Amino acid sequence: MTKETALDKAYRVIARCREIARYTEVAGETNRPFLCASARAVQVLVTKWMERAGMSVALDDAGNLRGLYAGESAGGPRLLIGSHLDTVPNAGAFDGVLGVALGVAVVEEMHGERLPFAIEVVAFSEEEGVRFARPFLGSMALVGRLDERVLALRDRDGVSVESALREFGLNPAGLPSAVADAGATGFLEVHIEQGPVLESEGLALGVVEAIVGQTRLLVTFTGRSNHAGTTPMELRQDPVAAAADWIVSVEKQTRATDGLLATVGRIEARPGAANVIAGEVVATLDVRHPDDAVRLEAVQGLVDFAQQAGERRGVGVSIETTMEQAAVPMSRGMTAMLESAARRAGYGARRMISGAGHDAMVLAERMPAAMLFLRSPGGVSHAPEERVLVEDVTAAMETVMELLSMLRDEGTEGLRNDA
Amino acid sequence: MTKETALDKAYRVIARCREIARYTEVAGETNRPFLCASARAVQVLVTKWMERAGMSVALDDAGNLRGLYAGESAGGPRLLIGSHLDTVPNAGAFDGVLGVALGVAVVEEMHGERLPFAIEVVAFSEEEGVRFARPFLGSMALVGRLDERVLALRDRDGVSVESALREFGLNPAGLPSAVADAGATGFLEVHIEQGPVLESEGLALGVVEAIVGQTRLLVTFTGRSNHAGTTPMELRQDPVAAAADWIVSVEKQTRATDGLLATVGRIEARPGAANVIAGEVVATLDVRHPDDAVRLEAVQGLVDFAQQAGERRGVGVSIETTMEQAAVPMSRGMTAMLESAARRAGYGARRMISGAGHDAMVLAERMPAAMLFLRSPGGVSHAPEERVLVEDVTAAMETVMELLSMLRDEGTEGLRNDA
Repeated sequence: MTKETALDKAYRVIARCREIARYTEVAGETNRPFLCASARAVQVLVTKWMERAGMSVALDDAGNLRGLYAGESAGGPRLLIGSHLDTVPNAGAFDGVLGVALGVAVVEEMHGERLPFAIEVVAFSEEEGVRFARPFLGSMALVGRLDERVLALRDRDGVSVESALREFGLNPAGLPSAVADAGATGFLEVHIEQGPVLESEGLALGVVEAIVGQTRLLVTFTGRSNHAGTTPMELRQDPVAAAADWIVSVEKQTRATDGLLATVGRIEARPGAANVIAGEVVATLDVRHPDDAVRLEAVQGLVDFAQQAGERRGVGVSIETTMEQAAVPMSRGMTAMLESAARRAGYGARRMISGAGHDAMVLAERMPAAMLFLRSPGGVSHAPEERVLVEDVTAAMETVMELLSMLRDEGTEGLRNDA
Repeated sequence: MTKETALDKAYRVIARCREIARYTEVAGETNRPFLCASARAVQVLVTKWMERAGMSVALDDAGNLRGLYAGESAGGPRLLIGSHLDTVPNAGAFDGVLGVALGVAVVEEMHGERLPFAIEVVAFSEEEGVRFARPFLGSMALVGRLDERVLALRDRDGVSVESALREFGLNPAGLPSAVADAGATGFLEVHIEQGPVLESEGLALGVVEAIVGQTRLLVTFTGRSNHAGTTPMELRQDPVAAAADWIVSVEKQTRATDGLLATVGRIEARPGAANVIAGEVVATLDVRHPDDAVRLEAVQGLVDFAQQAGERRGVGVSIETTMEQAAVPMSRGMTAMLESAARRAGYGARRMISGAGHDAMVLAERMPAAMLFLRSPGGVSHAPEERVLVEDVTAAMETVMELLSMLRDEGTEGLRNDA
């Protein structure tokens, strides 16, 4: 690949992402939830690209589009490359979609050449969790977790996952055949970082070592609602003051712990009138760290802070855990190969932690999985301003091509090396 | 009045308040906004009590019920006693209503005896500001401020004050005759404290020296919404953290300033999702103090805190002043007489500041005004649990009767002594 050709291909990848972004359920923005009409239209488009690149294409019964580019021999190992095609409301063009478009471009770049392994480009039907308030429905099908409990989930209109699949022309009974077989030797996901780290360090690429564990809490401070004009400060039981005291402690403690993220994204005082001391404050806390032990210890500390902030003011504190998810390490062997590939292609790739969940987290249950991050200009994602730099797409393309060369020369066994 | 008789009368006052509380627009609670059907029914009831006590009753064109108990001679001075009959939603039985029922009971207690001055019991039609988001409409009519701008205010259904008055059978053109004439020599309002101060000191009564000044601000913290999992702590511009930092400062600074009250009663983060760093926080600040200079200096300090909490995090802060109202001192002469009357009746009455606005604040523009507070058990008001103690109603009755004796013996000139 000459530099010019690589740039041309990168521009085409970006153009395809922007073309896909025009398919939407809501005019004027990109909004493409699971199993909607525009999702089908995008599948038709991507199928066309896949077939032109020499792939045989099938839709599995979870709605995942799967393009197989055969290897030198049937029944050999198979490398999965992909990401998702669904979006959040008012989305950008690259979250998920870039990983699919890049997978297709990599196969195009083979120009019919066969490798000792097949390549399966997977375009997951669902990752964002918008429609059924449950993410990763597409990748869960590949690890056998799209089970009856998940099929029974309902969207806001009361439609179950099972009904939605049927309405889309899929057959839930066929889900077992969507599970990745033993030939699947690894999963590579290329994705935008969706954060500011790579940009702040002037780097194009990052190699993900692990996806963070998460705890989410719903914290309720219960004080005593009273008249703002007649209740002396010393006789108040003000849950807003208690919550504020706690949030300041959360920020301070979190900044003091390397790699820890903690966010109070929602806070609401009730009844919420200017001249009434609130009776109750509801706030959320989202805590993430790549090391589960660090996260769990931090959560305990932050819960203690809440209790103390309440006690100092006669305010009750109740805590509900709404999410508890362990960190998921990526495959060491595959990640090391990906890092080498980036270096050989001429790019420094920072090792980093993904603070967001991704399909690779689910696939890692069943096969070696690795992720390549591309710099997100301005750290912006989940917004129309979401971008990628064409030179970063080039870097990613060249890195993946280099990885394929290494796998051709060294075999795919190294992917499974998790020592 | 023997002790037994006094208690009987106090029980009757309480029973009448509870009877009035049954008149409501919303079944199951007490909810009686300005000029509603149940307000008219209450006026019919109170008119009956007033007439039986020997008063001549009229409804002015603001809907205030005015019962006149004539003095020894026509054209002499006139003491106004009263409060309001409208309520907040889900109200208690005593806020406002107690002052009217007590005024009626005081006239009943005269048993036809004439004083050198008349007594006018005023039952204001509107004080709470619920229907038109503007309080004191009733008392404003007595000081000539129920003007065209106020008449043009509209409720949620688009009905103007003027139309509402007409629909109630009143004539806005007659409002000038609702203004208190020069014969009005003073206004006495008996009201529940609606706070915990008297109870915490074991006192039945309080004499109000002043009604606090108020500032209300709408404070908006504008940061940068971002992914809670991918944005390192040091790269965040989190408006929730800035707002929390500010609220902690507000609490600390306010506690350090004698008599200052500051309340953040409303806080809301947007978009308000657990896994999204908020982009904006909107909060209210309510600041009250009897000394306007202290209040204004405190507000400036609290605004500075907000700016600093924002600056430390790259968060913008904008401030909108939604209310700015100077403190209103009660009449010194009338307050001193009221305090003496309480003492002569055998009760200690704490001098205190009213942290809430009252009709007396408006009447004070035009005549000497004083307020007698009754202990609020649990500090509870604006709730069905709102109560008064029968012995405190006795104390208030005896204090007002003593004040009438003093005015009979000493003349009403002392009410105007504001030196």
